[in-house]
Amino acid sequence: MRILIVHGPNMNLLGRREPDLYGTTTLSELNDWLQKEAAVLGVTVETIQSNHEGVLVDKLNDAMGQVDGLIINAAGLTYSSVSIRDAISALAVPTIEVHITNLARREAFRRHSLLADVVMGQICGLGPVGYVLALRGLVAVIREAKN
Amino acid sequence: MRILIVHGPNMNLLGRREPDLYGTTTLSELNDWLQKEAAVLGVTVETIQSNHEGVLVDKLNDAMGQVDGLIINAAGLTYSSVSIRDAISALAVPTIEVHITNLARREAFRRHSLLADVVMGQICGLGPVGYVLALRGLVAVIREAKN
Amino acid sequence: MRILIVHGPNMNLLGRREPDLYGTTTLSELNDWLQKEAAVLGVTVETIQSNHEGVLVDKLNDAMGQVDGLIINAAGLTYSSVSIRDAISALAVPTIEVHITNLARREAFRRHSLLADVVMGQICGLGPVGYVLALRGLVAVIREAKN
Amino acid sequence: MRILIVHGPNMNLLGRREPDLYGTTTLSELNDWLQKEAAVLGVTVETIQSNHEGVLVDKLNDAMGQVDGLIINAAGLTYSSVSIRDAISALAVPTIEVHITNLARREAFRRHSLLADVVMGQICGLGPVGYVLALRGLVAVIREAKN
Amino acid sequence: MRILIVHGPNMNLLGRREPDLYGTTTLSELNDWLQKEAAVLGVTVETIQSNHEGVLVDKLNDAMGQVDGLIINAAGLTYSSVSIRDAISALAVPTIEVHITNLARREAFRRHSLLADVVMGQICGLGPVGYVLALRGLVAVIREAKN
Amino acid sequence: MRILIVHGPNMNLLGRREPDLYGTTTLSELNDWLQKEAAVLGVTVETIQSNHEGVLVDKLNDAMGQVDGLIINAAGLTYSSVSIRDAISALAVPTIEVHITNLARREAFRRHSLLADVVMGQICGLGPVGYVLALRGLVAVIREAKN
Amino acid sequence: MRILIVHGPNMNLLGRREPDLYGTTTLSELNDWLQKEAAVLGVTVETIQSNHEGVLVDKLNDAMGQVDGLIINAAGLTYSSVSIRDAISALAVPTIEVHITNLARREAFRRHSLLADVVMGQICGLGPVGYVLALRGLVAVIREAKN
Amino acid sequence: MRILIVHGPNMNLLGRREPDLYGTTTLSELNDWLQKEAAVLGVTVETIQSNHEGVLVDKLNDAMGQVDGLIINAAGLTYSSVSIRDAISALAVPTIEVHITNLARREAFRRHSLLADVVMGQICGLGPVGYVLALRGLVAVIREAKN
Amino acid sequence: MRILIVHGPNMNLLGRREPDLYGTTTLSELNDWLQKEAAVLGVTVETIQSNHEGVLVDKLNDAMGQVDGLIINAAGLTYSSVSIRDAISALAVPTIEVHITNLARREAFRRHSLLADVVMGQICGLGPVGYVLALRGLVAVIREAKN
Amino acid sequence: MRILIVHGPNMNLLGRREPDLYGTTTLSELNDWLQKEAAVLGVTVETIQSNHEGVLVDKLNDAMGQVDGLIINAAGLTYSSVSIRDAISALAVPTIEVHITNLARREAFRRHSLLADVVMGQICGLGPVGYVLALRGLVAVIREAKN
Amino acid sequence: MRILIVHGPNMNLLGRREPDLYGTTTLSELNDWLQKEAAVLGVTVETIQSNHEGVLVDKLNDAMGQVDGLIINAAGLTYSSVSIRDAISALAVPTIEVHITNLARREAFRRHSLLADVVMGQICGLGPVGYVLALRGLVAVIREAKN
Amino acid sequence: MRILIVHGPNMNLLGRREPDLYGTTTLSELNDWLQKEAAVLGVTVETIQSNHEGVLVDKLNDAMGQVDGLIINAAGLTYSSVSIRDAISALAVPTIEVHITNLARREAFRRHSLLADVVMGQICGLGPVGYVLALRGLVAVIREAKN
Repeated sequence: MRILIVHGPNMNLLGRREPDLYGTTTLSELNDWLQKEAAVLGVTVETIQSNHEGVLVDKLNDAMGQVDGLIINAAGLTYSSVSIRDAISALAVPTIEVHITNLARREAFRRHSLLADVVMGQICGLGPVGYVLALRGLVAVIREAKN
Repeated sequence: MRILIVHGPNMNLLGRREPDLYGTTTLSELNDWLQKEAAVLGVTVETIQSNHEGVLVDKLNDAMGQVDGLIINAAGLTYSSVSIRDAISALAVPTIEVHITNLARREAFRRHSLLADVVMGQICGLGPVGYVLALRGLVAVIREAKN
Repeated sequence: MRILIVHGPNMNLLGRREPDLYGTTTLSELNDWLQKEAAVLGVTVETIQSNHEGVLVDKLNDAMGQVDGLIINAAGLTYSSVSIRDAISALAVPTIEVHITNLARREAFRRHSLLADVVMGQICGLGPVGYVLALRGLVAVIREAKN
Repeated sequence: MRILIVHGPNMNLLGRREPDLYGTTTLSELNDWLQKEAAVLGVTVETIQSNHEGVLVDKLNDAMGQVDGLIINAAGLTYSSVSIRDAISALAVPTIEVHITNLARREAFRRHSLLADVVMGQICGLGPVGYVLALRGLVAVIREAKN
Repeated sequence: MRILIVHGPNMNLLGRREPDLYGTTTLSELNDWLQKEAAVLGVTVETIQSNHEGVLVDKLNDAMGQVDGLIINAAGLTYSSVSIRDAISALAVPTIEVHITNLARREAFRRHSLLADVVMGQICGLGPVGYVLALRGLVAVIREAKN
Repeated sequence: MRILIVHGPNMNLLGRREPDLYGTTTLSELNDWLQKEAAVLGVTVETIQSNHEGVLVDKLNDAMGQVDGLIINAAGLTYSSVSIRDAISALAVPTIEVHITNLARREAFRRHSLLADVVMGQICGLGPVGYVLALRGLVAVIREAKN
Repeated sequence: MRILIVHGPNMNLLGRREPDLYGTTTLSELNDWLQKEAAVLGVTVETIQSNHEGVLVDKLNDAMGQVDGLIINAAGLTYSSVSIRDAISALAVPTIEVHITNLARREAFRRHSLLADVVMGQICGLGPVGYVLALRGLVAVIREAKN
Repeated sequence: MRILIVHGPNMNLLGRREPDLYGTTTLSELNDWLQKEAAVLGVTVETIQSNHEGVLVDKLNDAMGQVDGLIINAAGLTYSSVSIRDAISALAVPTIEVHITNLARREAFRRHSLLADVVMGQICGLGPVGYVLALRGLVAVIREAKN
Repeated sequence: MRILIVHGPNMNLLGRREPDLYGTTTLSELNDWLQKEAAVLGVTVETIQSNHEGVLVDKLNDAMGQVDGLIINAAGLTYSSVSIRDAISALAVPTIEVHITNLARREAFRRHSLLADVVMGQICGLGPVGYVLALRGLVAVIREAKN
Repeated sequence: MRILIVHGPNMNLLGRREPDLYGTTTLSELNDWLQKEAAVLGVTVETIQSNHEGVLVDKLNDAMGQVDGLIINAAGLTYSSVSIRDAISALAVPTIEVHITNLARREAFRRHSLLADVVMGQICGLGPVGYVLALRGLVAVIREAKN
Repeated sequence: MRILIVHGPNMNLLGRREPDLYGTTTLSELNDWLQKEAAVLGVTVETIQSNHEGVLVDKLNDAMGQVDGLIINAAGLTYSSVSIRDAISALAVPTIEVHITNLARREAFRRHSLLADVVMGQICGLGPVGYVLALRGLVAVIREAKN
Repeated sequence: MRILIVHGPNMNLLGRREPDLYGTTTLSELNDWLQKEAAVLGVTVETIQSNHEGVLVDKLNDAMGQVDGLIINAAGLTYSSVSIRDAISALAVPTIEVHITNLARREAFRRHSLLADVVMGQICGLGPVGYVLALRGLVAVIREAKN
């Protein structure tokens, strides 16, 4: 089972950017954690981060037929990118949307994710742990669907 | 560590009610699964279900000082119950809101949870697995905060 | 054929409460009228009134598999109770929503029933006669569907 | 007692148009049914159908002082015709608005009837039976008011 | 100078319809008054009333090049008829919109006239006198423009 | 019969300010015209202009019991002054609201007059002629009411 | 003179719940204070608190004809309970709505009370003192109305 | 293959009405052009224009089973006529909505067509050429569907 | 302890203006009552009334450092005056907003006070008694804060 | 005559992505079809597809003075890209916006194109044929403008 | 070159009022600074502050033909004063709107300035420096326009 | 002191694109002007322009710890780019937002900048001079903050 994990704009700053809000774990540490978790679960994980919407859409397009599940934190693109939404729809694999912070406690414009109704579910507000739970949950759901 | 898990109105019908939407796992099976998971994690879990908002508020009030964390699926009360919102604020422990279905794919009135900005985070759309992930995540976050 | 008739909060005051608005027929007189009409139609009718949302949801849950049709005037709960809405959806029998007054002539918040799109139809503004018409109509529709 | 029954635009297609939505009873069959019901009730019924708003308004104007009650399904004109609304107000007889389908389950623009607050009540979603119930209810209400 | 005066739907009932709201002057009396006023002013007036939007649009189309000014009370069509709006724009003569009642004191949907921004001005709430003032004002404005 | 005519802020600039929009008649010329018209009608007219909302409210308060009718163009205060609205209500005499331009053709915030539903009627978009028509109409209405 | 004082959900936590917001006076201390004030004023006071909307509606129904005035802080039910609103309307005695905090400084959903237009007045933001002022004011108003 | 082409209110003025906006081609010239194009394509075209909504609805009703495709410019009725919308749904043939001008550059109320979601597609802003493209496109789509 | 009491526009008409709405107590009688109450409470009260927003803002500015508390009924300025709001914020003393009528029962634009979230609390709908309660409550709160 | 045809994000998936919605023609086949059509029309066509908004803006900037017309389907960028809108305005050549599907039948956020009022016209919902019609129409309009 | 600088309500408190928000520079110090800057630039500056909208409008009216440019911070009147807006339009000289704080970071009602679209530009959030930049910028723009 | 100046999409066309709106100064001339101003002020300025949101976000990320202040005109990305907003927040240096035109005079969607509440202030509508003022103001504010 192959899982793609997509990090959106500014996620490269994780651990350095507004740590009161986003915590002190860096993106590199988070990706290492996810790889270890993947090893335990017996699945393959590929991670990508980009500040370029086009690079993310290209990646999602290229992944068609290559992955079994998707975990995505589109960050600032969550609220305006119909292109990423359309790319997720086209990819057509089980997908979990993750957000590090609880969007409901932040600015009003963060309350409406354009991705929310084309993904399977969301995990928000749990910090980096949210990614690990998403990975476990996604694997569980895909395995259950295969049985 | 003591965790309270609250199931709102109509959750007693889980497994029997609109199975295409909510799945075939019953509430009793879900609670058993959560108790087993709790045993693995070394924590105590208490579950409650009621169709009465007042019963849920009473329970949350009584839990003050008695529990370390809360998992709540307020079901139909999610969208109108300021009383449950106020009770969660008063309880003042780390809380995760869970929904079995992806609310963003359902009726418009289900897009705005009155609880969302007084809880720590949400897990939606993953079915019963969402509760298990919530339990694992909540325990991880509480343990990390204690260190 | 068994029909459940549900009266929501404050309906116990019917005949005593704001008679210019709601008329002078009492709830007891209305229920008697409905029982007589049921006898004529050859069906069984059970009526319930409660000021407690939870009691109404419990009753609707317990009625699963026990009734063939539902007539409901959720009164003040019509505009906020997703729990009753979800319970009607779960019950899954032909349902008619009744209101004694013409909601369109009253306060703005009464123009949007949360139940309207999960029931089969509505009868509003005809006073107690509306219940009798609902009973006749419901029986006719159920009998037609059985043929 | 004389009752006018008004059918709005496209109602001439009843039985032929989108039968999954509107059923298979034709307008002619519905009018026959209403005449029979009128005979039983001992009242006179006149029916009219037109696709022309002006024809309907002319008819309502001509009916002033000629009828004791009105049943109207303004169909597509329900949502935009202030002229029909004004004509109903001018006619000033007890009026019931009927819709064959449950408007709350259809497009958003069908949720707000411009006629709703100038009529006595509504019956929606019960199919052709709704007209018969409206006739019975209207006669009952007018007779009660005369006593 | 030729002035066209257009009366919309239900205006034929003037004097008979809701006299508390619209007064007791009939349309025929009002038209007589306007003809006398026209004689004093030395202009020609033609009046038309119809409950049919199409008839009104036809008339406005036929008037192109035949009239020097327009007074219109589109009545119930004021709020929904883009066709009359377009016909007024096409006619392209000075136009005054008249309403017998003060629309701001009535239902909310009467606060926004679709015609208001394609006419020269409005006179509202003055009863039948409003038409006479409109006629005087329109003649004054057209004469001033010709000088 | 005594009529008070109130000109709001910036009306002192009439004839000098944006003449394409407001014309070239000065306020002094307009007031002269109104005095002549008043003489013809046999009524007394007092005019006031101020850029100060408080001065206008004081004047309206002082006029209680001193005037039989009011013509008011509150200019820029039309859209925000509840104080002038309340003063008009307190004055309780027949009132006509006048605007020189057609507000429906200007900025969106000019479409909603706070005064509109506490006055008898409006005359808009006819330029200075609108004041003269308002005076004639107001006198006619007051005289008719006295008979 | 008999006054009923109703405390809504979570008010049992007063003094323990978010004291920065709600203060340190307990509900029991507040009720004692109100009883003493009642003795001074020479009136009888009954207090009730419940987290159950149905219990509060039952109490308001039972109070019909038994009390002369009502003071109510519906707490979290203020924003959604049409049932309590309807029960207050049915009770039909002078009523003052009290809130301990200034709702205008809190979440947006607390700015619109469903009860506000069926009560006589509101006292908000003054803490427990607000109840005492409400009691004094209510007694003064009732006594004045009796003279 | 038979194609019906419907022109709504004021389209009879094409070429004479606001030529800066609508161009100088007359309706008669446009219909000639369409007939020639139809001859080239080997299809039969019937055109109709009316200022009467009822006439257009009658025509659409009569066309049931008589035509294979529809091109419609409902003009001013586009924004308010649920009756035409319902008639198009009832007709149930491939339909293209045409507008001569680019509605997005005009008044705000022209941005929302009531017909848009019951037709197959739209062509806007291309002037009379838009009709010719619509005819070619419609024929191509119908022929492709037949294969 | 010095308390400033500010009466906004048209309050000079109290007792004379719309007595059904505002009662028959005059402003002078109300101020006398407040002075007597102040004597009982042992505090100094200064009252001001003006129809001029600027005068009220000047007074609030001059009061900086001169008063210990503020009672304000900004009347018609409540809904639009950011200047008074800013002056209250600058004054920075405990403040109670008073309204004689229950704003929730009046026009929609009176439901949103621009002052509500910069004052300590509100008392509305209790008539002149509301001022007396406000004075008592304000003194109690200030004295409590000093202890 | 040189025409630029721009395909936005995910259009590279055409024919593979959600074929029920977008059909089975691939982008390469569509571009071939357009080149053939261009040859027939005697014009030069250049096509570009990119998932990168920046690439599309660069291309539109580079095209200034190099092309005579533009056909653009901005796909997911249609609803949020002010940059593409600004680039189209800067390019200042006749432009047709094309969409393969009928946007009015899809999600609500697809009903408002940010490009619609800076292009000449739109063709929507006709599938790949829409591009061909756009090319023919654009060439016709440009040629007509040159004459 | 003569520049008028207008300070709105409560600006007299600058330096004393909420210094965390508005800083510690007093209005007198700011005006001194602006006079020195004016001397350097070789222009004449007049400053005015008032809490009275009417005084500000009078001043702007009197300035017609007397000044070459305007800098205005209407403070609390920014959001409601159509009169000041109209006076700026009438004045018809290059105008810069200044705000000391960043309005976008404050209450929602401060996000929409009624003046913004009748001035040349805005400078916000830079504190007193903003006035100096506005003066320099305004002089530069006026001088450039004269060349 | 190092200042970064960021120019968003289509700014490369400055001087060539819609010169009536944006003027005739080219981006290269503007950058030269800013470099000269920087030399006078004794600060280092780096400028960047890109049509790619990702490039701009990358640059802002790379600038962390490398610059002391930021001037940004995000152009078309101002209204949709949460990613640039988040990058500005992460950069955490004093920032001024500049726009060449007065956004309040343009399309409605340009009235709400997503960046406005994360920057220190804005300068709009002053043309290229606005950048120079921003540079002076930013340097002044940073130097003041260092003292």
